[in-house]
Amino acid sequence: MRVGDRHYRSIFVDADGETVVVVDQTRLPFEFVLAKLTTLEDAGRAITTMIVRGAPLIGVTAAYGVALAMRVDASDAALAHALDVLGRTRPTAVNLHWALDRVGRVLKAMPAAERRAGAYAQAGAMADEDVAACKAIGSHGAKMLAAIAEKKAEKSQGRPINVLTHCNTGWLACVDWGTALSVIYAAHDGGIPVHVYVDETRPRNQGASLTAFELGAHGVPHTLIVDNAAGHFMQRGQVDVCIVGSDRTTAQGDVANKIGTYTKALAARDNGVPFYVALPSSTIDWTLHDGIAGIPIEERAAREVTHLRGRSATGEVVEVQTAASGSPAANPAFDVTPARLVSGLITERGVAVASREGLAALFPERAAEPKRAGGKA
Amino acid sequence: MRVGDRHYRSIFVDADGETVVVVDQTRLPFEFVLAKLTTLEDAGRAITTMIVRGAPLIGVTAAYGVALAMRVDASDAALAHALDVLGRTRPTAVNLHWALDRVGRVLKAMPAAERRAGAYAQAGAMADEDVAACKAIGSHGAKMLAAIAEKKAEKSQGRPINVLTHCNTGWLACVDWGTALSVIYAAHDGGIPVHVYVDETRPRNQGASLTAFELGAHGVPHTLIVDNAAGHFMQRGQVDVCIVGSDRTTAQGDVANKIGTYTKALAARDNGVPFYVALPSSTIDWTLHDGIAGIPIEERAAREVTHLRGRSATGEVVEVQTAASGSPAANPAFDVTPARLVSGLITERGVAVASREGLAALFPERAAEPKRAGGKA
Repeated sequence: MRVGDRHYRSIFVDADGETVVVVDQTRLPFEFVLAKLTTLEDAGRAITTMIVRGAPLIGVTAAYGVALAMRVDASDAALAHALDVLGRTRPTAVNLHWALDRVGRVLKAMPAAERRAGAYAQAGAMADEDVAACKAIGSHGAKMLAAIAEKKAEKSQGRPINVLTHCNTGWLACVDWGTALSVIYAAHDGGIPVHVYVDETRPRNQGASLTAFELGAHGVPHTLIVDNAAGHFMQRGQVDVCIVGSDRTTAQGDVANKIGTYTKALAARDNGVPFYVALPSSTIDWTLHDGIAGIPIEERAAREVTHLRGRSATGEVVEVQTAASGSPAANPAFDVTPARLVSGLITERGVAVASREGLAALFPERAAEPKRAGGKA
Repeated sequence: MRVGDRHYRSIFVDADGETVVVVDQTRLPFEFVLAKLTTLEDAGRAITTMIVRGAPLIGVTAAYGVALAMRVDASDAALAHALDVLGRTRPTAVNLHWALDRVGRVLKAMPAAERRAGAYAQAGAMADEDVAACKAIGSHGAKMLAAIAEKKAEKSQGRPINVLTHCNTGWLACVDWGTALSVIYAAHDGGIPVHVYVDETRPRNQGASLTAFELGAHGVPHTLIVDNAAGHFMQRGQVDVCIVGSDRTTAQGDVANKIGTYTKALAARDNGVPFYVALPSSTIDWTLHDGIAGIPIEERAAREVTHLRGRSATGEVVEVQTAASGSPAANPAFDVTPARLVSGLITERGVAVASREGLAALFPERAAEPKRAGGKA
């Protein structure tokens, strides 16, 4: 995506052919700063501290993390260590494990001398595939939005279609384009008038900081709201459709996504607003069915709730305490939206009904795979 | 309520018999500072800038505001001016109009020379009545909590009853005790083990700052969560009951309360969690039925969404920007929870079913009053 006069991917390999460069998302929206990752530890830390975040980008960063490890030591032991370290960085997103399984499988079959180049090639291929998947998601989703826009135009000529989204699912969450925001970019670029309600997305404010930044940079009309206000706007008929992303989708269409997604889906259902989830199929966990019982929910630091970062009047980015001193806080990072609340899953192959049958029809080769032990738990 | 070693009401008349003293709620939770109101303008500003907030406290502050005006000029014109100025401070809470109507009616019937003393007497009576109503709400609600606790004890001996609340409905929102928090205080003081999930309550963070401060000062176990997390905790069975307050309740039981209340009620309904609203009957607008169509929703400054106040590492309270520069924001301060989502209304006369019949049974004398023109709109 464009920032200023340059086109960026959110992750790329530097001119030296080995250093991995990412956008430091903890510095946005106030500073656009690139961070260089040169070691396995750099890559792990970038994921845990959320310098990079978003399920697809986490997966690609982990793959590059293996490549960075292979620069130093390409032995079986070093490979196993890298896969283990990176596998423990975030518990909820399934892309992480998908990416590590894939790069691990390929590298294990290679002689150690080829692993360094092999890992970079795998990570690069994954990045390219993610861009292609996100482009396709945008294109399929934009057709869905066009249909809603056409229906709306019969009643309210020329008024934009109002989309509500949660968290950040744009190019910053992926390698380029994004998932839910790719749909919005494709519609906007394709001439469908779109206005986006952006949930602030507490506690880390990815909506206020990253999504608002992206939409502003791309010129898409948008309005920031607090998470509490989403239901009110739906109740007042001011939202035509919700589109969110997914960190892990089960084989029956349950969706683990940023905390607060579930209550937005409830508000959509209560007001007859369609609720779509946009995701590359790499976020589908074919071994799981019941998302509420089966998806581990990451519990992050209480300090993310009691404190936050912002820019002071003097221009410094500072952390401030907002909560009463001494009050404990709980901070689950994701929640699970059951498939019954999801109108459709927008994937790179098209829009699926959020059900086992719906997903199996689009991905017959994956749906037939054997279930992981405990996968029904 | 106790703060340190003193008992405070959130509003009281100073030793001089005329200056009105309030807790400056914009300085909490970091500083406990009293503010003195000596003029009509002081009272109006205290309401609009939310030095005082909470429907019951707004009503009493407005009544004292009339008294402050009468100190300077007790003419009919001055009285009309004071009622007008104060009536335009906040649009959603109905207590404001209820209090102004009441004090206005009494004062208009008095000779000008008696209005100053009469206004203080009226405001003082209203404050005392609010305290009595809040005490009664606490007592009725605690019986309801005791019944839930008893049912729970059959399954999970000794574990506390988990209550989720939104915004601040404690003594800081009223004159003393509070509404929803009065129920919690009465249960806690009465030996029912209670643990409270406190919604942060963006954008003004009254949960994180005021409710957490109050519960901490009173020694009630609690956990702060972001508004987005409420649905998740209900889905996981970690909430036994929700109790919130109300800024305006219609004659059929629709509830206008702090933005985000509606989505919490939806999550409660989806998970079979009882959802109660605690309110003094002064917040009931007997002239209105359909809350979604009829209650004006205050739109506050966008800056409350894009910026917030907190305490920096050096101990100063500063305002920081959290959102991307240039992104517009919308900030509705309240939403309407339809009666169908409300399990019961906890009033000073007992718990009513949230319906016209339920409220009329408890308040037959009010329900029989003629409807205001347009009251069905």
